[in-house]
Amino acid sequence: MIRSWPARRNSVSFLRPDCLIILALCCLLLVATAALAQTDPLPAWNEGPAKQAILAFVRATTDPSNPSYVRPEARIATFDQDGTTWVEQPMYTPMLYCLARLRELAKDKPELAGAEPFKSLLSGGLERLADASTDDIVKLYAATMTGMTVEELGNQVRRWLDTARDARWGRPYTELVYQPMLEVMQLLRAHGYKTYFVTGGGQDFLRAYAEKVYGVPPEQVVGTLNATKFGYDAAGKAILTEEPKLLLNNVGPGKPQGIHLMIGRHPQAAFGNSDGDKEMLEYAQAGGGARLMMLVRHDDAEREYAYAAQSKIGTFPDSLLAEAAQKGWVVISMKQDWKRIFSWE
Amino acid sequence: MIRSWPARRNSVSFLRPDCLIILALCCLLLVATAALAQTDPLPAWNEGPAKQAILAFVRATTDPSNPSYVRPEARIATFDQDGTTWVEQPMYTPMLYCLARLRELAKDKPELAGAEPFKSLLSGGLERLADASTDDIVKLYAATMTGMTVEELGNQVRRWLDTARDARWGRPYTELVYQPMLEVMQLLRAHGYKTYFVTGGGQDFLRAYAEKVYGVPPEQVVGTLNATKFGYDAAGKAILTEEPKLLLNNVGPGKPQGIHLMIGRHPQAAFGNSDGDKEMLEYAQAGGGARLMMLVRHDDAEREYAYAAQSKIGTFPDSLLAEAAQKGWVVISMKQDWKRIFSWE
Repeated sequence: MIRSWPARRNSVSFLRPDCLIILALCCLLLVATAALAQTDPLPAWNEGPAKQAILAFVRATTDPSNPSYVRPEARIATFDQDGTTWVEQPMYTPMLYCLARLRELAKDKPELAGAEPFKSLLSGGLERLADASTDDIVKLYAATMTGMTVEELGNQVRRWLDTARDARWGRPYTELVYQPMLEVMQLLRAHGYKTYFVTGGGQDFLRAYAEKVYGVPPEQVVGTLNATKFGYDAAGKAILTEEPKLLLNNVGPGKPQGIHLMIGRHPQAAFGNSDGDKEMLEYAQAGGGARLMMLVRHDDAEREYAYAAQSKIGTFPDSLLAEAAQKGWVVISMKQDWKRIFSWE
Repeated sequence: MIRSWPARRNSVSFLRPDCLIILALCCLLLVATAALAQTDPLPAWNEGPAKQAILAFVRATTDPSNPSYVRPEARIATFDQDGTTWVEQPMYTPMLYCLARLRELAKDKPELAGAEPFKSLLSGGLERLADASTDDIVKLYAATMTGMTVEELGNQVRRWLDTARDARWGRPYTELVYQPMLEVMQLLRAHGYKTYFVTGGGQDFLRAYAEKVYGVPPEQVVGTLNATKFGYDAAGKAILTEEPKLLLNNVGPGKPQGIHLMIGRHPQAAFGNSDGDKEMLEYAQAGGGARLMMLVRHDDAEREYAYAAQSKIGTFPDSLLAEAAQKGWVVISMKQDWKRIFSWE
């Protein structure tokens, strides 16, 4: 370190005073330009309390002179996926994948097609899937998402996403992400927040596309967790195989558990849309200080879907609405708060 | 964005050509100064193949013109703790904590003190602990590190670390970290690497001090994992309680499993010191491309300890030495490669 000092002194004496002034002015101009360029970081949002809550939270927690300032290391924001950052109707996309995969596997494995719950899932389609018990879902998950290496699973998921199309819009599922939520993620990241997914879907399912679609790297994906098995391939290379053993059901009370396991802190901000996110928002708030808890409400049948307490998928009971009001959580109305829902609108 | 363009154009036309040249020269000088200041980022290391391997790896993987370049998002380095970044003799520090905690609890709970394996652990001390079965250790862990909230556990660990002293040097355990490994962690972080712990000790034990002692945040601590239980305290605040349920034994094949669970990528570099780290190094190497695998060998009885194949703690069998030689893993000799072992030497 000491050896570098003479060079530094030379570099300062080398500057003429007028050039120093020009340098300072350039810096000022750069700052002013940056400030202008930052006008409205949430263009897909209508003006209103939800948008204001997000902007106020980011301002307060990143301004060192604000009493609510949060040091950069603690800036963690968690997002549910299905129904919060992309469409979840008429069925959660990870479940659609399992069903599609089951159909594919059943072609070559009649013994699979003939056994329950697979037989009735194959014939009953989405309605049967909506009524499936946790046990059915664990079996479906084991049959379709385990037994291959973690890399193979990622490849299978990406191949499906490349060709599968949503029934309503005829688009890839990865185009059904909510533009306003992408903007929130980007705004938070631009202010030093790490954005995490905390989803009920399988961790390795979401990891297959989270970085490309949402800018969220694999180490920031908390999902329903299953075990893997360590071993070696034929060439002696170390591999991990997906195992049909559930480690954590990352839904409801499982979300704070998953957050503790993978993050070890209370999120500073948490975003959800259903009763499966309640405990995550409670846990975020329990961290104290300036915390932002938000719930997306699907109330726009025209542009997306309108559902709430009555839905088997993404249930938003009245008790959750009451808890939100009581605890100061912000409810986002898709109809009122979102100017645009999808990037391609 | 559009509104900012006129301002940007003005800022460019404002500069006189001679000032642009001066600006460019200043940039060059800054780069040169920075390069000088970076001389020897590993001062606690002697010159030799181990030090050169680290420097060459960092250079190759962070130079965009190098074929071994690694994009910043994929720069992950994993470190074992006990025996790799701090002293593990005569007993792993997390186990010393459990034993100390057991002694404390036994004062008020005679029923604990009288039951096995606690009775013999209390009377047999370190020798009995070194021979403990996995089942004994799970019971010891459950008795001393579960039943309290995750925050309470962190506080208990920190209180112990504040007062406990190592028998050989009479120093806090957190001062028994290896200065050369701290330098490697800092060097890697300065080049965009995320440094993770992947340790056999309890995750929440290491999290209690990892940020302060090593600069590793809680979300980058992979350890032996136990379940937590979600609930509410008397005031209705959401809490998590440590549960006596093992989710992942993060040793041996458990290390790649823990890495996949929390990181979801092959580490670009992995550091260990015993047969419990073998699979982690194999898994790092299986990622392909430029990978750095290193093993610390304890061969300095004078300044630290000399032990290897014959030790129950931190076993380094000859088969591991042979695998290292065959696969191009670099063995670090504490005696030869480390100029200084502790920061206070």
